[in-house]
Amino acid sequence: MARQPELGVCYYPEHWPEVMWEQDAADMVKAGITHVRVGEFAWSRFEPEPGTYDFEWLASAINTLGDAGLKLILGTPTATPPKWLIDKMPDMLPISREGRTRGFGSRRHYCFSHMGYRRECARITRAMAERFGDHPAVVAWQTDNEYGCHNTTHSYTPAAKSNFQTWLEARYETIGALNEAWGNVFWSMEYLSFEEIELPNQAVTETNPAHRWDYRRFASDEVKAFNKVQTDILRELSPGRDLVHNFMTFVTEYDHFSVSEELDVASWDSYPIGSLDVMPFVRENKEHFVRTGDPDIQAYHHDLYRACGRGRFWIMEQQPGPVNWAPYNPDPLPGMQRLWGWEAFAHGAELVSYFRWRQAPFAQEQFHAGLNRPDGVPDRALHEVTQLGTELKTLGDIEAATQADVAIVYSYDSHWALLNQPQGQNFSYIVQTLAIYRALREKGLNVDFVSPDAPLDGYKLVVLPSQIHVRDEMAMRLTNFDGDLIVLPRTGSRTVSHEIPANLAPGPLSELLGIKVTRAESFREFAAVEVDYRSKIYTFDRWREYVEGDAEAVAHTTDGHPAITRKKNAYYIAGWPDEALLRDFLDVRVAAAGLSILDLPFGVRTRTRGNFRVFVNYNPQRVSIADCVSGELVLGSLDLAGADVAIERLA
Amino acid sequence: MARQPELGVCYYPEHWPEVMWEQDAADMVKAGITHVRVGEFAWSRFEPEPGTYDFEWLASAINTLGDAGLKLILGTPTATPPKWLIDKMPDMLPISREGRTRGFGSRRHYCFSHMGYRRECARITRAMAERFGDHPAVVAWQTDNEYGCHNTTHSYTPAAKSNFQTWLEARYETIGALNEAWGNVFWSMEYLSFEEIELPNQAVTETNPAHRWDYRRFASDEVKAFNKVQTDILRELSPGRDLVHNFMTFVTEYDHFSVSEELDVASWDSYPIGSLDVMPFVRENKEHFVRTGDPDIQAYHHDLYRACGRGRFWIMEQQPGPVNWAPYNPDPLPGMQRLWGWEAFAHGAELVSYFRWRQAPFAQEQFHAGLNRPDGVPDRALHEVTQLGTELKTLGDIEAATQADVAIVYSYDSHWALLNQPQGQNFSYIVQTLAIYRALREKGLNVDFVSPDAPLDGYKLVVLPSQIHVRDEMAMRLTNFDGDLIVLPRTGSRTVSHEIPANLAPGPLSELLGIKVTRAESFREFAAVEVDYRSKIYTFDRWREYVEGDAEAVAHTTDGHPAITRKKNAYYIAGWPDEALLRDFLDVRVAAAGLSILDLPFGVRTRTRGNFRVFVNYNPQRVSIADCVSGELVLGSLDLAGADVAIERLA
Amino acid sequence: MARQPELGVCYYPEHWPEVMWEQDAADMVKAGITHVRVGEFAWSRFEPEPGTYDFEWLASAINTLGDAGLKLILGTPTATPPKWLIDKMPDMLPISREGRTRGFGSRRHYCFSHMGYRRECARITRAMAERFGDHPAVVAWQTDNEYGCHNTTHSYTPAAKSNFQTWLEARYETIGALNEAWGNVFWSMEYLSFEEIELPNQAVTETNPAHRWDYRRFASDEVKAFNKVQTDILRELSPGRDLVHNFMTFVTEYDHFSVSEELDVASWDSYPIGSLDVMPFVRENKEHFVRTGDPDIQAYHHDLYRACGRGRFWIMEQQPGPVNWAPYNPDPLPGMQRLWGWEAFAHGAELVSYFRWRQAPFAQEQFHAGLNRPDGVPDRALHEVTQLGTELKTLGDIEAATQADVAIVYSYDSHWALLNQPQGQNFSYIVQTLAIYRALREKGLNVDFVSPDAPLDGYKLVVLPSQIHVRDEMAMRLTNFDGDLIVLPRTGSRTVSHEIPANLAPGPLSELLGIKVTRAESFREFAAVEVDYRSKIYTFDRWREYVEGDAEAVAHTTDGHPAITRKKNAYYIAGWPDEALLRDFLDVRVAAAGLSILDLPFGVRTRTRGNFRVFVNYNPQRVSIADCVSGELVLGSLDLAGADVAIERLA
Repeated sequence: MARQPELGVCYYPEHWPEVMWEQDAADMVKAGITHVRVGEFAWSRFEPEPGTYDFEWLASAINTLGDAGLKLILGTPTATPPKWLIDKMPDMLPISREGRTRGFGSRRHYCFSHMGYRRECARITRAMAERFGDHPAVVAWQTDNEYGCHNTTHSYTPAAKSNFQTWLEARYETIGALNEAWGNVFWSMEYLSFEEIELPNQAVTETNPAHRWDYRRFASDEVKAFNKVQTDILRELSPGRDLVHNFMTFVTEYDHFSVSEELDVASWDSYPIGSLDVMPFVRENKEHFVRTGDPDIQAYHHDLYRACGRGRFWIMEQQPGPVNWAPYNPDPLPGMQRLWGWEAFAHGAELVSYFRWRQAPFAQEQFHAGLNRPDGVPDRALHEVTQLGTELKTLGDIEAATQADVAIVYSYDSHWALLNQPQGQNFSYIVQTLAIYRALREKGLNVDFVSPDAPLDGYKLVVLPSQIHVRDEMAMRLTNFDGDLIVLPRTGSRTVSHEIPANLAPGPLSELLGIKVTRAESFREFAAVEVDYRSKIYTFDRWREYVEGDAEAVAHTTDGHPAITRKKNAYYIAGWPDEALLRDFLDVRVAAAGLSILDLPFGVRTRTRGNFRVFVNYNPQRVSIADCVSGELVLGSLDLAGADVAIERLA
Repeated sequence: MARQPELGVCYYPEHWPEVMWEQDAADMVKAGITHVRVGEFAWSRFEPEPGTYDFEWLASAINTLGDAGLKLILGTPTATPPKWLIDKMPDMLPISREGRTRGFGSRRHYCFSHMGYRRECARITRAMAERFGDHPAVVAWQTDNEYGCHNTTHSYTPAAKSNFQTWLEARYETIGALNEAWGNVFWSMEYLSFEEIELPNQAVTETNPAHRWDYRRFASDEVKAFNKVQTDILRELSPGRDLVHNFMTFVTEYDHFSVSEELDVASWDSYPIGSLDVMPFVRENKEHFVRTGDPDIQAYHHDLYRACGRGRFWIMEQQPGPVNWAPYNPDPLPGMQRLWGWEAFAHGAELVSYFRWRQAPFAQEQFHAGLNRPDGVPDRALHEVTQLGTELKTLGDIEAATQADVAIVYSYDSHWALLNQPQGQNFSYIVQTLAIYRALREKGLNVDFVSPDAPLDGYKLVVLPSQIHVRDEMAMRLTNFDGDLIVLPRTGSRTVSHEIPANLAPGPLSELLGIKVTRAESFREFAAVEVDYRSKIYTFDRWREYVEGDAEAVAHTTDGHPAITRKKNAYYIAGWPDEALLRDFLDVRVAAAGLSILDLPFGVRTRTRGNFRVFVNYNPQRVSIADCVSGELVLGSLDLAGADVAIERLA
Repeated sequence: MARQPELGVCYYPEHWPEVMWEQDAADMVKAGITHVRVGEFAWSRFEPEPGTYDFEWLASAINTLGDAGLKLILGTPTATPPKWLIDKMPDMLPISREGRTRGFGSRRHYCFSHMGYRRECARITRAMAERFGDHPAVVAWQTDNEYGCHNTTHSYTPAAKSNFQTWLEARYETIGALNEAWGNVFWSMEYLSFEEIELPNQAVTETNPAHRWDYRRFASDEVKAFNKVQTDILRELSPGRDLVHNFMTFVTEYDHFSVSEELDVASWDSYPIGSLDVMPFVRENKEHFVRTGDPDIQAYHHDLYRACGRGRFWIMEQQPGPVNWAPYNPDPLPGMQRLWGWEAFAHGAELVSYFRWRQAPFAQEQFHAGLNRPDGVPDRALHEVTQLGTELKTLGDIEAATQADVAIVYSYDSHWALLNQPQGQNFSYIVQTLAIYRALREKGLNVDFVSPDAPLDGYKLVVLPSQIHVRDEMAMRLTNFDGDLIVLPRTGSRTVSHEIPANLAPGPLSELLGIKVTRAESFREFAAVEVDYRSKIYTFDRWREYVEGDAEAVAHTTDGHPAITRKKNAYYIAGWPDEALLRDFLDVRVAAAGLSILDLPFGVRTRTRGNFRVFVNYNPQRVSIADCVSGELVLGSLDLAGADVAIERLA
């Protein structure tokens, strides 16, 4: 369905005198903003004392904003329970992996598993929903705020232990079944009852990876259950509104596909500059993109969360200038608000919302820029957002993002397994999936992420990163897939309960891939293994496997073993390919799949949506995109400035 | 007042048989030593069992030393409470930021806030003062030992929490005022009473910077209160004696100006070799000065603590050879005792005292050299000290240090604010103030540090490092100052309760400086911003600000923004200048202020006191100072050997 | 006594269906394996519920294996107490240095000092021994598993504190004697009773090194006492069987000489690839040997543990392929099983046993290879082991290892002192002893390690690494030694209670060495001190000492001080020699001692046993050993392939 992409902003009426609200609303509208998020940290104002609610100030704010024509996204305040609640129920505080209670004084000071706190969340959510659920200006609800932020998905409280035991009993039914599934006979780890089972922290050395994998699954399910307490109430009391949660960059401790099942829209908070600062990239990359952000990280999350949202996603918080939380916080280049906005829309975003309307002059985020300066003067970002809004209107309605030709299967469960047992410390699921994504996107392709449970119909090429456990149903789906399938190492190397499959890796994909993995090694970069692919020498630089079977070898290690195998349309890469090997191999496969490739300049990316192709230049300097454009430019020029955008109307 | 600089030594009669004391005293006198510090770790000998005092051995030692003509500095033993006291009152132990109790077994095992321990300190101090307060050989008292050493200023005990709540109530009166001042509406951090307030450790993520800033101020006040318990007793029972405490290198967790208000003399413990080893300097510096020490760190502390002592300062402990506590402990070059001593006297020290008389053959400091070896043979240091004593006598009385032409304002409060919220991890107040100090001192200038509360009359040039909060009174003083004023970035960027000023930074200095800071960014060195100053290209290499206003730009960034501004006599540097920019800009300002500069060779430093100018050569190799000397050398030569000293008599 | 070296394997019948055992046994025999270790992690199967034993399955396994002709090594399961036992006695869990209880979920979750757990260990050991002690197939018992693994020697429980106090009382008798010995007058650390003494963790800053040294000795004695509980029972109930424990690589927290006094054979677990990965070596070394292992680490442990076992040692666990526990886990080159096996036998091993028979498909060690793959197919290692077994038979009986010409004195007590007080952070006893060992072994010499208590008769050259405390008896033994004696710095620098000797270092060796150490310094590599030895310039690169005395200087520092001294046959190196200086100095001394040197190619090592000389090539590539071989090769060739072995029959 074609629609006009929209702009939003995060606003905290409780931070500013009521007398300012009306002018703020008018200024938002003037800037082209249509949506405002409010309320998500205001519990101490909703309930200043235990049991005494005060929603009148918020009603007034909602009315003021609504009267100006703005649509409201209401946040439940459960990420910031007030001090009096903690003092009443101190065991709701989370406990760290090292056993330290994480106290009050900032935010997210709660354990997902604490049933008393869940009841409190239900109470405040119900109170808000009863008050505002049918307000005509309210179009959406955000549950809580940034689940998992500050490393809070995992908590090691007695409540978590108790819930974990219950979760395990539901899964395994008998303790004997659990002992068998986990292989607890090893090191006499056998339990006599579920009550004996501890959380997998604080042991003398590493715990059973089956134990940890189940713990991670449990913890993810706890986030889902916690969220569902609120969405159930909101669906009941505020029907017809979009339910949303704001996800984050590279927060992976819970399954976003699963949590999104209870939501209408996936949204996420995009902070490109800080995200680049903390990623383990080479200095050249960090230096070149220091004030624009990595050219793939934003798009990676757009595509991932669009999949989580079953096609619908928003940016709930967009970085508007320097922020406060990274080790170093450079100023984005002029133009980046517009670039990041256009890129999000190109990837299918319905809404891009900025954090926040006005820079806060107090508390933790004083160094976090806003659309307006703390003294109320419009900041650079507001000008760029206004320009973006104008351009959006010029282009009119745009079709929703449609299915790409290429898909990458993204599995949180596999990510957890690799965190539990990397075997080589540089074997990172994030790095791997980002490398695949980058290699495909550098060719100008639209790329989808898909859940391991998703159908693959219609794709011409599917890449399967290290999918540690492959369910039988998934194996069947992959077997029936008739496009090219590229499978990365370690796929199918574990059963659901973290055993090596009886037929070894790739387990249920053995027949499809025509191989058996007989041995694997990890190594530091200096021990890289040479690979000959089409008479050029590359390396496996972190991992290699020895495989045997009836598949054909299309690349060999120079010490004589298969490096990439092929059986019909299914390819297996028996190691961690260096950047060049991954790129060149994918080039060949993409061409073979009949997909057309754009020869994009370094640092430039592109995506199509509807009948538009958006080009974004992540370089600080000017480049030419003349070789990539055949149609009419409706925005920008072929001589594309640094941090600039061009849009081509497709034939 | 002209006086003869003197030499001292730290001595532990309780470590050696009484039979040795008399000879030791004679040997001290022979070496030219006049002062001896005793007693500061001997609680278990003063009170071997609870309530049973034994001061007779100390009386005997004092008499022996006094009879030899030595003057005694008596230390209270409160840095080392004995085990029986801990066992009686275990909650006096400090608790670390991570919540771990820090136990007995070394020293400083107490929390400053524990009122029971304060009473015990009063008791032992009173007992000592009653016994020795009027002893004619006793000329001074040292309270405790090295406050803050081993990271002990901050403790997270229930006692600290309770005192902190009391401190906050005294400061804010109502909880509403505190909530307002801290901006606790942010993240629902509002409190209903002072009793709800926690110490700012152990939270899920960063606590409110206002919370932490007040905690740091509180903790500093606790040190002052703890110290005052003792000084009140000593002033009463030992009138006429100098009260002193021994400060340390780069220990900054409490305000030394404030604590010194209760003292007569500031003293400090100078360990140049280890201090260099632990500083974050480039390897070239560390390597070149590895056996001499950084050429500015010692002088920096002389000048800082001279300011704290209102003109009076001592070296209480001078490193006499290799020590035990740094990661690596090289041997100082022969000559360094004499060099460090002369340098201290040049900066105004009344006394330089060595740690210790004889190397201890047991316990924690066995690798810490003394003036004598453990076997009683004079070590290299004793020979150098003896030479120094002889030279001092040759020169006779020297005038006290007088006010310099140049001052740097030093603010502990600003230092704490930057530790709390660096925004860029390399933004260090210590590094900044040392860089300014070094740049000025490389020109051969005498430099004063002054407190933010000090008058600026008489200075020709004042440098104001990042003064985070500027009180109105200070703003007025700066405005009235008629010399050149050079202001570093982030000055005036916060109110006293850590809010951004309503008129933005530099807040109350906006009119004086003619600027408003509209945006700031931090970055790693590779993202440095180019600066054009007098047609030469430098960089801001950690920080830059965008400023607007009516000030004139005397330097620009190459992307077109003001880099250094000027309004009348007030300059603002809108970024972190690299070493060359800082040096060259100061060169110009110093010259403009009519100050004469010496062209010192690399690694050579100088200072004048009275009618002498002392040159010290921190290089291991020989250099010529012929270009710097116009008068008569009363010590040393123009061809100055490595680790050597020359003294010029000024006209 | 000449004997046939033998092969073994670790086997876990409890992991596999009983129906597989007979075939497994047959396959072991077929591969040339004679010994099988079983049982050491199976407590939860021996005693599934408290007090209910089930040994029938093990009896069946033993019978099946024994019937196939295999000899059984039975392991007591005390490294893996089951959960029900922990829940009954939770205070048996160890506590970390940081005060955190280390819980159930992996292994080694017990404190050595817990007397209740010792009783439980006695109970299960007695039950096993009563059941199997006289079984004819049982030839040996292994106590527990890998003492000290996962950093478990030191535990900070109340039980440990109580035992420590008792240990101290037994050692010092009166608290006054302890205070005197430790020098507790320093910092008022004096105790009024033994009950006041804490464990040396959690203090504010470093505790008394005397305190820590005694704690380390105590902790080592606790391991010995814990082990003796089991060996006493086994000697009683299973007479005639070898008692053994499996030691580890570079685990040094307890005195292996001392613990071995209760054992018949020392054994150890050899994991060359992972050991190299975690050592602080230069990258060149790590890269070159990444798939073969460091060429000296294995031999170092063979020679050390042969000394502990009074001539008798086994490899209890030999790495058979990639493992799971290092940060990176490369695959050993084909051939390495055979190479490591031959090398162990050359150093005197009676048995080399592989870990494990079949790769476990579940729990913590899934990535740890076995002789067979998880699917039961023989892995590369099984083929190599089979070849090794065949070659062993071809050569027949071999004499036991005999005394070498060269000895290095190895002192756990000195190692602990240096860990306690390195003074320079790079002063490592392990690095020092390995450097000496490597320099000697590169010359083709057989090398013995000897205990500080061992006689030195028959050696031509003895090297004494930093022997911190030298007992009078040892001093006499060294004085009476008539070969060349080479003494490293810091020797004799402390009394038994960690005081500096009254006559300074080297204390009781002063007369023998003709020196007194008057000063020492540590430094980073960039502050290295130049040394002139035989007109070539080397360095002391971590440490230097100033010495005086009547010894002759055979090398000088270029700043004019003695660097290496000689008095008669006793040499003292007054610093940490760089690699070249150590090698060249030892070359001269070895030649002077009349020992013949082999000019081995880089990466090749050799050892003689009986009338065979074994060459092993740790390089991945081919080298020639033609210059080193004069006799007949009974295995391999002069043109030695990478990872290959050659054996020369000596005349």
